[in-house]
Amino acid sequence: MTIPLSQSADPKAKAALTRLNQLKQQLNLTPSTASKQTVNDMNTERQAAEFNIEALATFYGGGEKTYAMTKNAYDLIKNDPELVVQSPRNFLELDRAEFREFTMGQVYRLAQIAKNLGPEKREYANEIGRVLGIYSESFNMRFCVHRLLFRSVINMLSSEEQRKYWLPLVEEIRIIGCFAMTELGHSSALRELETTATFDIETDEFVIDSPTVTSSKFWIGMAGQSATHTVVIAQTIIGGKNKGLNWFVVQLRDPKTGELMPNVIAGDIGSKVGHQGLDNGWIQFRNARIPRTQLLAKWVRLDRDGTFHQAPNPSVMYATLIPERLNAVRDMSFLSTQALTIASRYGVVRRQGPKNQQIMDYQSHYVKLLPAISFMYMIQASFETLDAQFSILTGDGGINDEAVYLNHMGDLHAISACLKGLVGWYCSDILETCRRSCGGHAYSAYNAIGHIMNDWGVFTTGGGDNVVMLQQTTRILRQRLAQQLDKGIYPKLQFRSSMHYILQASDYLKKRSWTVDVDHLEDCLKDFSLVTEALYTILVKRLYSIQQAIKQGATENDLLLESVKAAELHCAAFLFEDNALRFGRAKPHALDASVVNIMHRLTGLWGLHVLHTYGDQGYKEGFLSPAQVTGIEKLYLKVCKDLRYQIVGLTDAWGYPDFVLKAPIGKYNGDIYEAYFDTILQAPNSTGIPAYHEKYIKPLTERISK
Amino acid sequence: MTIPLSQSADPKAKAALTRLNQLKQQLNLTPSTASKQTVNDMNTERQAAEFNIEALATFYGGGEKTYAMTKNAYDLIKNDPELVVQSPRNFLELDRAEFREFTMGQVYRLAQIAKNLGPEKREYANEIGRVLGIYSESFNMRFCVHRLLFRSVINMLSSEEQRKYWLPLVEEIRIIGCFAMTELGHSSALRELETTATFDIETDEFVIDSPTVTSSKFWIGMAGQSATHTVVIAQTIIGGKNKGLNWFVVQLRDPKTGELMPNVIAGDIGSKVGHQGLDNGWIQFRNARIPRTQLLAKWVRLDRDGTFHQAPNPSVMYATLIPERLNAVRDMSFLSTQALTIASRYGVVRRQGPKNQQIMDYQSHYVKLLPAISFMYMIQASFETLDAQFSILTGDGGINDEAVYLNHMGDLHAISACLKGLVGWYCSDILETCRRSCGGHAYSAYNAIGHIMNDWGVFTTGGGDNVVMLQQTTRILRQRLAQQLDKGIYPKLQFRSSMHYILQASDYLKKRSWTVDVDHLEDCLKDFSLVTEALYTILVKRLYSIQQAIKQGATENDLLLESVKAAELHCAAFLFEDNALRFGRAKPHALDASVVNIMHRLTGLWGLHVLHTYGDQGYKEGFLSPAQVTGIEKLYLKVCKDLRYQIVGLTDAWGYPDFVLKAPIGKYNGDIYEAYFDTILQAPNSTGIPAYHEKYIKPLTERISK
Repeated sequence: MTIPLSQSADPKAKAALTRLNQLKQQLNLTPSTASKQTVNDMNTERQAAEFNIEALATFYGGGEKTYAMTKNAYDLIKNDPELVVQSPRNFLELDRAEFREFTMGQVYRLAQIAKNLGPEKREYANEIGRVLGIYSESFNMRFCVHRLLFRSVINMLSSEEQRKYWLPLVEEIRIIGCFAMTELGHSSALRELETTATFDIETDEFVIDSPTVTSSKFWIGMAGQSATHTVVIAQTIIGGKNKGLNWFVVQLRDPKTGELMPNVIAGDIGSKVGHQGLDNGWIQFRNARIPRTQLLAKWVRLDRDGTFHQAPNPSVMYATLIPERLNAVRDMSFLSTQALTIASRYGVVRRQGPKNQQIMDYQSHYVKLLPAISFMYMIQASFETLDAQFSILTGDGGINDEAVYLNHMGDLHAISACLKGLVGWYCSDILETCRRSCGGHAYSAYNAIGHIMNDWGVFTTGGGDNVVMLQQTTRILRQRLAQQLDKGIYPKLQFRSSMHYILQASDYLKKRSWTVDVDHLEDCLKDFSLVTEALYTILVKRLYSIQQAIKQGATENDLLLESVKAAELHCAAFLFEDNALRFGRAKPHALDASVVNIMHRLTGLWGLHVLHTYGDQGYKEGFLSPAQVTGIEKLYLKVCKDLRYQIVGLTDAWGYPDFVLKAPIGKYNGDIYEAYFDTILQAPNSTGIPAYHEKYIKPLTERISK
Repeated sequence: MTIPLSQSADPKAKAALTRLNQLKQQLNLTPSTASKQTVNDMNTERQAAEFNIEALATFYGGGEKTYAMTKNAYDLIKNDPELVVQSPRNFLELDRAEFREFTMGQVYRLAQIAKNLGPEKREYANEIGRVLGIYSESFNMRFCVHRLLFRSVINMLSSEEQRKYWLPLVEEIRIIGCFAMTELGHSSALRELETTATFDIETDEFVIDSPTVTSSKFWIGMAGQSATHTVVIAQTIIGGKNKGLNWFVVQLRDPKTGELMPNVIAGDIGSKVGHQGLDNGWIQFRNARIPRTQLLAKWVRLDRDGTFHQAPNPSVMYATLIPERLNAVRDMSFLSTQALTIASRYGVVRRQGPKNQQIMDYQSHYVKLLPAISFMYMIQASFETLDAQFSILTGDGGINDEAVYLNHMGDLHAISACLKGLVGWYCSDILETCRRSCGGHAYSAYNAIGHIMNDWGVFTTGGGDNVVMLQQTTRILRQRLAQQLDKGIYPKLQFRSSMHYILQASDYLKKRSWTVDVDHLEDCLKDFSLVTEALYTILVKRLYSIQQAIKQGATENDLLLESVKAAELHCAAFLFEDNALRFGRAKPHALDASVVNIMHRLTGLWGLHVLHTYGDQGYKEGFLSPAQVTGIEKLYLKVCKDLRYQIVGLTDAWGYPDFVLKAPIGKYNGDIYEAYFDTILQAPNSTGIPAYHEKYIKPLTERISK
């Protein structure tokens, strides 16, 4: 099927192109030995892949059907000027106003396309939305605010009647919704939120109010310019008493005129480090009135006479956070894999001189990039496990026993929290590594990595601060450990969870030293259980020593950094074990053999990376000897070296087209220099005499012969 | 004396202010419990300082005279609209074109001021330039390109005659100079540069040419829009033979009209991650002709008949890199201390709720910030040592023995290279720590940290890649170690250098374990030599094992990461020992006792930080036991906790006025919320209906009741 393209891009583009071609006539664009070498280098690297790149891409892309759909979606958006910025304009040049407009235009265009495709092709329309989010993280955030945040609150906390009214409006984007949680003075500590919703029994309304400057809702995506509605979390005051936090739907703007509603004041929070395409805003409610029926009433209820019925179990409100966090991890992996692709490609075509080795050959280069690449594969593969677990929990009739349900929810909460924390932090390092590994050219805005890093900033603090996330995981781990050791109780479960190793806690605690002999460390690459044993022993000993310290009077705060590290290790070990179970050699496998083989090698590398990174913990416990620690490091470096020539194939398999990556130095075919220079020549106002010459330069320099 | 202010800021400002005041009438700006608490919190923190903050500030600021001059300079620039962006405009809102213009305006204004002050107040004029560089890193770079890079090449490589001609033009900014070294395809590997300067004996000229696309000069600060001249490094072809690299002066633009010179094509490289106030550019020379006399001829000479006289010792060309690197370290410390000040102040006034503890009280907070703060003090104090050493070397008649001179130069090269590397990397982590520790609000562009981080990016790769820098240090260390161990030779020196410990290398190698008993680790805080012993033992053993591995056939590349770590440790240990010598308790001291006391504590913390960070190197050698490693960590955490209440005083002493920091959450008096909200309300186009409402929102939302 064909989607009609909207009309062609702006007329200035033609003039710019003419100017560019004139300039290029004057320049010397003769290739050099260095620039001619790059395409050959890239081809050689690609041929060196010891696996079927397309098969790995299919696996990574979620199987044949999904992968084909993704490719179609990329093809569809590529030439659409309302979805993808067309040359010679550059996505990375959009200023704040242009960018906010462009992302809203993408939403609009996507809604058109989805309508044209019709309900039977909804899956494909969703995929188009997903790849647009990969192309632009600002679009992704904008779309997620409405589709994920606003929609889930309505979906999960509404009464049946409310759902029937609101959901069609949301799904067809007849209203644009945002999510008003955080305030100027309050973020994660929800109990302290100041916004109030006071029931006025006379008029049967809630009065929504921002009582102080710090109570202004703040950071609210789409509140700045575009949302017509919001869900608001507020202290619920009924009959003069605070009944706790509840969610309300409040209209912000007139859908036709865009004017703010009476007693609602909102504005854009202006410039952020990244996400300039999203109109984050602030909102003040000055006694804005909404009908009682806009209190979301799945778990609570307010009768006409002011009688309030509390929710049976407050934790029901939090289950929605798990898929949101997993979603955030997925978004983060899109950004990181893009940066890694750019850095890897540039690394193999860049040399310090035509006769020198490729930059990628330096140990400082490939040893930083390879574990990062393997990490991205570990996460992706483990999503299957977590998705499957979550589906069992949320599917109809999967689990009938409430205790079992809550235990599994606890486990999923724990693993999703630490995953968000570990990915948020480690990938932040990975992005910095990518930038550094590209040298100066990643400092050009046109090579995209800087843009990715600016968007990234939000992930280390937004959606739950990572310190808090990781601490929560360790708290749950410690509770389970205490139950197990003190009372021999392990929670009733239906399937194996990420905490299963706590069942063997007392065995791990008894281990004095790692059984693997220094001369046989390579066995770890064949028998993954040796690594698992080490990781879980170190982890259980750490958890136990935190526990003991607290029993001896240390505060939780004194052990905060230890706790954070323990949760990181829990997460890293889970990823290792999950992939070890999946890609152990012994088993027959549905996947292409070369895919299984490379995943096996990546798993082995990941295991060593974790052992190497958290080896100090093992050493402090006396579990690892100095010789073992040194041996692990050596083997780790060797495995990285062995995988050096797989880098291009591994990053190719993530399947990003050039227009998505945007970085000329990350071009698929390796022919980077002319493309990069071309991009530079297209920078607006990059030639000619600057406006400030007369004012500031000439008065100084005309005195050359004073 | 008074400097006449240039005319007042733009008229739009008034309109914006009116609009802002109208908006504020409608808003609820009532303080909350949380917002009222902040000023008290800040005062309490300030009073908790166990040292005289002003005395520490004076010490940090370089003594009474310099410190007073700095304060005057801040006062002078503060209200000058051509030097400092005046409210309601926001420095952090300048777009690329405005920012490039503003920084050039600063240069122009500074030149005016310097002229008004006259030659006898040149020191003060320089200080004004320095604080302007602290206010704006883009200005700093712009000014340094001319004053430091362009000027040093002319100054150090010109013949007497050339100096006489060019230097006055440079100093009085009658020409604006840039520094054309890097090319599109070449950065640090100078030998591979492609630009040629071919001598045409007929016309007595050099013909400067860019033979290929990759030879385009690239990243050249001020080449984009403003420089009239440049120094160019090029392959020198004389009589058909390549005589190697030399520097030439080439005119780029007409000083009056700003037009490019014939056969010179240059343009702006457009958008970068940071430094948007600097017009980095590209240059192509298409057989541009310059007189023979513009070959810089201090060390080389070309006669009229084409006879070329080579430089006696090529290394003379590189001595200029040492002060440049130290200068870069200084710039980096300005940026890092600003971010640390902001994060520290916000950390003490922010609470999760009015009854909760201050965010700063979390272990994850102060344990990250305090070592970073101590690091900044260690660097600053050690500058004195390095400056003094460099002065001896460059001062007239300081050292007559050429061998001694070259040995010291080698040592200074080694320490400046690793210092640039360590500061570049560690402070990059520090900035990320600062951003994370401020939670979401550091993601607002208006809290400055994002801007600092974007400017920062250049330091980890520019001016010599940090991996290369650190590797160079380790190479020199290894050479010295080999000489010492194999032949008992230690280079002839006139004063103690950063490598002095290599003299005792064989003693260090004999040490089997650290002598400090686990129960007496606190002794390290009194007797710093215990720490020095540990650090140097670990370091020498590492260097030795690298050496041995290479003897046994490992390549340098196989040991690259080890080498990098060794150089980091060398640098960190130098800083520790240098400060330990300075601030050991036993000695009488010219400084205020409370300053010595706090510097002593910071030195102790730094030593523990280094031991903790590089402890793994120690246990891999078996030199540190598991109990010692654990004990070091415990003590490290304790010392951080003991210093928790010194944080505000320590960051106050860096002396940044609020207008320099720019971040409302980092306000000196702690009254942050209204100031922050005010800033947000001033964001351009932050209220009202967006231009794209009609086009993209209305068509969707007017269907609310379809």
